[in-house]
Amino acid sequence: MRQAGRYLPEYRAVRARAPFLELCRRPELAAEVTLQPIDRFGMDAAVIFSDILVLPEALGLPVIFEDGAGPRLERTITGPDDLARLTRAGLVERLVPVHEAIAAVHAVLAPRGIPVLGFAGAPFTLACYCVDGGTSREYPRTRRLMRREPAVFAQLLDILAQAAAQHLIAQARAGAAAVQVFDSWAGLLGRDDYRAHALPPLRALVAEVRRAGVPVIVYANGSAAHLAALRDSGASVVSVDWRLPLDAVRSELGADLPLQGNLDPTALYADPGTVAQQTRAMLAANAGGPLIANLGHGLLPDTPVESVQAFVQTVKESAG
Amino acid sequence: MRQAGRYLPEYRAVRARAPFLELCRRPELAAEVTLQPIDRFGMDAAVIFSDILVLPEALGLPVIFEDGAGPRLERTITGPDDLARLTRAGLVERLVPVHEAIAAVHAVLAPRGIPVLGFAGAPFTLACYCVDGGTSREYPRTRRLMRREPAVFAQLLDILAQAAAQHLIAQARAGAAAVQVFDSWAGLLGRDDYRAHALPPLRALVAEVRRAGVPVIVYANGSAAHLAALRDSGASVVSVDWRLPLDAVRSELGADLPLQGNLDPTALYADPGTVAQQTRAMLAANAGGPLIANLGHGLLPDTPVESVQAFVQTVKESAG
Repeated sequence: MRQAGRYLPEYRAVRARAPFLELCRRPELAAEVTLQPIDRFGMDAAVIFSDILVLPEALGLPVIFEDGAGPRLERTITGPDDLARLTRAGLVERLVPVHEAIAAVHAVLAPRGIPVLGFAGAPFTLACYCVDGGTSREYPRTRRLMRREPAVFAQLLDILAQAAAQHLIAQARAGAAAVQVFDSWAGLLGRDDYRAHALPPLRALVAEVRRAGVPVIVYANGSAAHLAALRDSGASVVSVDWRLPLDAVRSELGADLPLQGNLDPTALYADPGTVAQQTRAMLAANAGGPLIANLGHGLLPDTPVESVQAFVQTVKESAG
Repeated sequence: MRQAGRYLPEYRAVRARAPFLELCRRPELAAEVTLQPIDRFGMDAAVIFSDILVLPEALGLPVIFEDGAGPRLERTITGPDDLARLTRAGLVERLVPVHEAIAAVHAVLAPRGIPVLGFAGAPFTLACYCVDGGTSREYPRTRRLMRREPAVFAQLLDILAQAAAQHLIAQARAGAAAVQVFDSWAGLLGRDDYRAHALPPLRALVAEVRRAGVPVIVYANGSAAHLAALRDSGASVVSVDWRLPLDAVRSELGADLPLQGNLDPTALYADPGTVAQQTRAMLAANAGGPLIANLGHGLLPDTPVESVQAFVQTVKESAG
């Protein structure tokens, strides 16, 4: 999960100087906030500070972040004409600030033996933003387009998969040791619809990035209904949310599949002792399988810093 | 799922005359909109038009519905002092408009052999509104209270369970043949936390209502992680969302458990032929087990009326 954020005072200090999107666009600031949690907590890997919406923006759908409200796209995809207007040529060049930030972080962390990870949104999740134009609980426009114009919807997801693959490969070339693909809105779809609509472009994306020699971690929020599909995506690592304990995940996916996850981010609202206990319970449920210990979703802004510390420390102690 | 709503022109005509909460408070209007879909589509049962927030309101937490925004509670629960201020005495009397609406619908439908169903929110979902004060994606205050003050949180859920049980039993006495309990935000919790925090008060609620001889349907949005807990609630019928096909639900809960569900509401965005096909696929996945055919969640406002018609007709033909 993205590690930098509003729960850290040093992050808020940087944000007081620059709006969110400027952090994504200015490599030196993105690198600075990426390094903050590593310096404070000593995690084993850094996740580049960026946003999945840099990709729609690079495709010609400008993004506005208004204070208090979520992100909003100035234009949305409503039909085939909008697909034709997406600016696919020169895409990677427009995303260079992200790649430069990765290079800057890599330069700092490589001597310390700490890898940096890149990321992008999964095709379905990117489509949710491109069609509904912002964060929504139901994403009605997206799901309507999927039902009414499945061919247009599939074409949009293919375009997004290709764009995300290019962006991820460029992140790896800039120094990312692996990349994550976030399907944040996977939970909107039923099992069969995920397999029919979301999985084929996701598989294509993963295949293309792995062909370039880059390990791919695939995360879905709402993973309980989609575990087999996530494995079938071809992911190097399947990253799951917090709804199912890891023993339940492993009983469906096997003891040997590399997993990432999955403490409930709100478990960190508790006192450090309770956090340590919950973290040990999570590791016990994993029963020694290959695991990147992590949360099951992003941190909430008011998470106590000492709870993050307790989580990281407990994982490190358990790893011996 | 609630059947009346913004997808029906005759509902919008009534709403043009009265705000949403007035519909909940005026029995003759609630009865009128409850009957609309029955008259148009001929469903086998009616669901009373009401809102789960009438219960927090009756407990002394007034609710405001602002146009365009979601509901908002004027006061929220932040600690034990707020619990002490909840107005538990005379609760059922303050909910009489709902019971009168049920009696009015019952008077019309009983001669036609059509039952009317009552409903209330599940303790956890009601707590989400009481603590966060409105609709939220993350319900951070609720989950923080659960982590930091689990005893206060448990006490809140107990109060809500008792209040909901009283309201449901009163609905049954007014003529409801069965009642539904909606755990709309169950999907926020991991499996173990649901079992630890949400299930005990839910079980107590279900037991009390069933002791009064009233069948209880328990619905959870986000049911995939909580199927065994929903069965263990003691529900007469387990009502599931659309994320898992019914064969996957039955493989966990057995062939004989009465289920309700579970077509994706957005499947109704498609043309009637596709809706009929998807409805038949849902019924086929159920493989002949006891089922109340329904959607897996509420209808979206822009759902085409002819798709609802296709759904109901396909179910009736399959049952015929």
